[in-house]
Amino acid sequence: MMGGGPDTPSKQSSGDKQLVLCTLPFPEEKAAKSIDALKEEFKDVEVEYFYTQHENGKIKPLEIPRELLARASYQATLFWLPENAEALPNVNLIQFFSAGTNHVAQHPIYTDSKIPLCSANGVHGPQIAEWVIMMELVHSHHFPKLYDLQKGKTWSQKAGMDVRDRVGKRVGILGYGSIGRQVARVANAMGMDVLAYTASPRKSPETKRDHGYIVPGTGDPDGSFPSAWYSGTSKEELHEFLKQEIDLLVIAVPLTKTTTHFLSTDEFKLLHASNPRGTYVANIARGQIIDQPALVEALHTGLISGAALDVTDPEPLPADNPLWTAPNVLITPHISGSTDVYAERAFEVLRENMRRQRGGKKLVNEVDRDRGY
Amino acid sequence: MMGGGPDTPSKQSSGDKQLVLCTLPFPEEKAAKSIDALKEEFKDVEVEYFYTQHENGKIKPLEIPRELLARASYQATLFWLPENAEALPNVNLIQFFSAGTNHVAQHPIYTDSKIPLCSANGVHGPQIAEWVIMMELVHSHHFPKLYDLQKGKTWSQKAGMDVRDRVGKRVGILGYGSIGRQVARVANAMGMDVLAYTASPRKSPETKRDHGYIVPGTGDPDGSFPSAWYSGTSKEELHEFLKQEIDLLVIAVPLTKTTTHFLSTDEFKLLHASNPRGTYVANIARGQIIDQPALVEALHTGLISGAALDVTDPEPLPADNPLWTAPNVLITPHISGSTDVYAERAFEVLRENMRRQRGGKKLVNEVDRDRGY
Repeated sequence: MMGGGPDTPSKQSSGDKQLVLCTLPFPEEKAAKSIDALKEEFKDVEVEYFYTQHENGKIKPLEIPRELLARASYQATLFWLPENAEALPNVNLIQFFSAGTNHVAQHPIYTDSKIPLCSANGVHGPQIAEWVIMMELVHSHHFPKLYDLQKGKTWSQKAGMDVRDRVGKRVGILGYGSIGRQVARVANAMGMDVLAYTASPRKSPETKRDHGYIVPGTGDPDGSFPSAWYSGTSKEELHEFLKQEIDLLVIAVPLTKTTTHFLSTDEFKLLHASNPRGTYVANIARGQIIDQPALVEALHTGLISGAALDVTDPEPLPADNPLWTAPNVLITPHISGSTDVYAERAFEVLRENMRRQRGGKKLVNEVDRDRGY
Repeated sequence: MMGGGPDTPSKQSSGDKQLVLCTLPFPEEKAAKSIDALKEEFKDVEVEYFYTQHENGKIKPLEIPRELLARASYQATLFWLPENAEALPNVNLIQFFSAGTNHVAQHPIYTDSKIPLCSANGVHGPQIAEWVIMMELVHSHHFPKLYDLQKGKTWSQKAGMDVRDRVGKRVGILGYGSIGRQVARVANAMGMDVLAYTASPRKSPETKRDHGYIVPGTGDPDGSFPSAWYSGTSKEELHEFLKQEIDLLVIAVPLTKTTTHFLSTDEFKLLHASNPRGTYVANIARGQIIDQPALVEALHTGLISGAALDVTDPEPLPADNPLWTAPNVLITPHISGSTDVYAERAFEVLRENMRRQRGGKKLVNEVDRDRGY
């Protein structure tokens, strides 16, 4: 390694090349295609790759030669950082491979430096939106019943009747970020009406736009899918939204003080009063956004038609928790963000930011340290 | 009933009103909303409704006064017809509530009259497309494994890993009719590439258009979603299509001599050679289009990654058929066309045709008696 000894002399810098330092939690082979594409686009870069492994829930210590750190123009990382910003005197930006940077918010590089930090926000949109659409269809087309019939080798058409297709139904998206926007795109294609909810009002075309990274061909770049926009952080404002006869309510807001137990019995009652057909609730954000005992009760009393939950309170959900067996609930173990192209997509965000940095343009997904995201 | 006695004198015709005669296989209450909408749009019509019931697999005899038949301007029916066209001297069109009219192809009204017959082709698009998308996602997101885990109250993230999201994947649609077009719309929104296959070539914008009934807001009216079009009825032409690295193959062609066993071992081999990731095959057309023993073998040998089948050969599929337990197969009992708004949508086709007939325009979904559909 450069300056570290004679073991990889071929990686010796030419002196003209800019170094992209990767400290990522998967083996280099998994990133090979993306690294090739990076080098193909940027002929003047070289890449040094370190596999940051976990051991007993902790990061395995990683020794990176100081000289290499000092030479890095870009760092791509999930969690590994050098002890402070002085170790990275030449870095132009640090590209995180996670949607947020909360996990490093106490680190000196976050608190005491001005190195631009960028998240990989946006790379979860397609797969999590697919999870939402899948669950919505599994529920409305009675897939679990049909699947159980197949296991019993039973041909019985009754189980597949009373399907409600999605045309003309309404999806309310609480938190219109990259995930919500891709849900909107697909729901719109299925003939659904889309309502968006955001913390702050989005009245102008500019504020309706998605300013973060967007997987090409997906999402709602201009905010054109919603037929109406709602906003606010108060319960009153939330209630106005929940009264709009929503068939599918997608929870995609971050967990904050405001959104903790944002949905409880009062909110389920409003949904039911507004839509007696029954609202289906999908949560892909955080379990604590829903008052979970109130949710279990709402499922039992039929205030909502069902719930699809990729997140619970707590996680893992203990085996004796009554949520497991509440009626019309589907639970998955916080996996909706999984996709085999995760790393590939995060590298695309890095490339976009290298392009922008070199072109003197505003970075995408740059973290506002005061705001916290 | 008009002319039939004193029991419903309020329905006595004013003489100026045009009669819509409904002979439909569900109780009048289920059609009430649609009938109201019809009368609301066409102030000069009256409706007579007859519930055509089945008994022991046969249509229960239905007596409709000749005088009423003679006065009908439109008939809406699924299968009931008077004995011949002379009984309907004033009818402008017969609107069938089924996608096809094969079931009446031997009837004198079909063989010996020129009464315009219209199908309800198009009303199945949304719900069957949803079934296809659901199955595609259930397969790629490993839903059955996740569902089984939930039953065991087990939180295990492993089962939800290795998801392949749909962005950049390719759907090949064999039979680009109303169902295939709505699959295309949703798949496109998920970021997929769309290839269309039709029996005859569609080179001009006009031939790419959907000329049938389209549920508003759905489908592909102009044929704008496919990135490429393939066509033909020969195996050679089919093979060219199957070589296009297809991730999801949707079978949506009618069953004809040509399409019987259209897919067999040779075709599964081509799919595999072109796409080693594995093609997922969804059949919502007819079971006989696939050589079923060859399909079972292809599932066992991994020539395809899986299959979602709403149709089998034969139906019902006997409990001892090896298809039930082939790997990566999902079977539903020919229910993908089910939706609670079926009647409502078929009434919308009737209204569209009444509009067109009164405006002197070409009817939608008019059956070409020579062609057979």
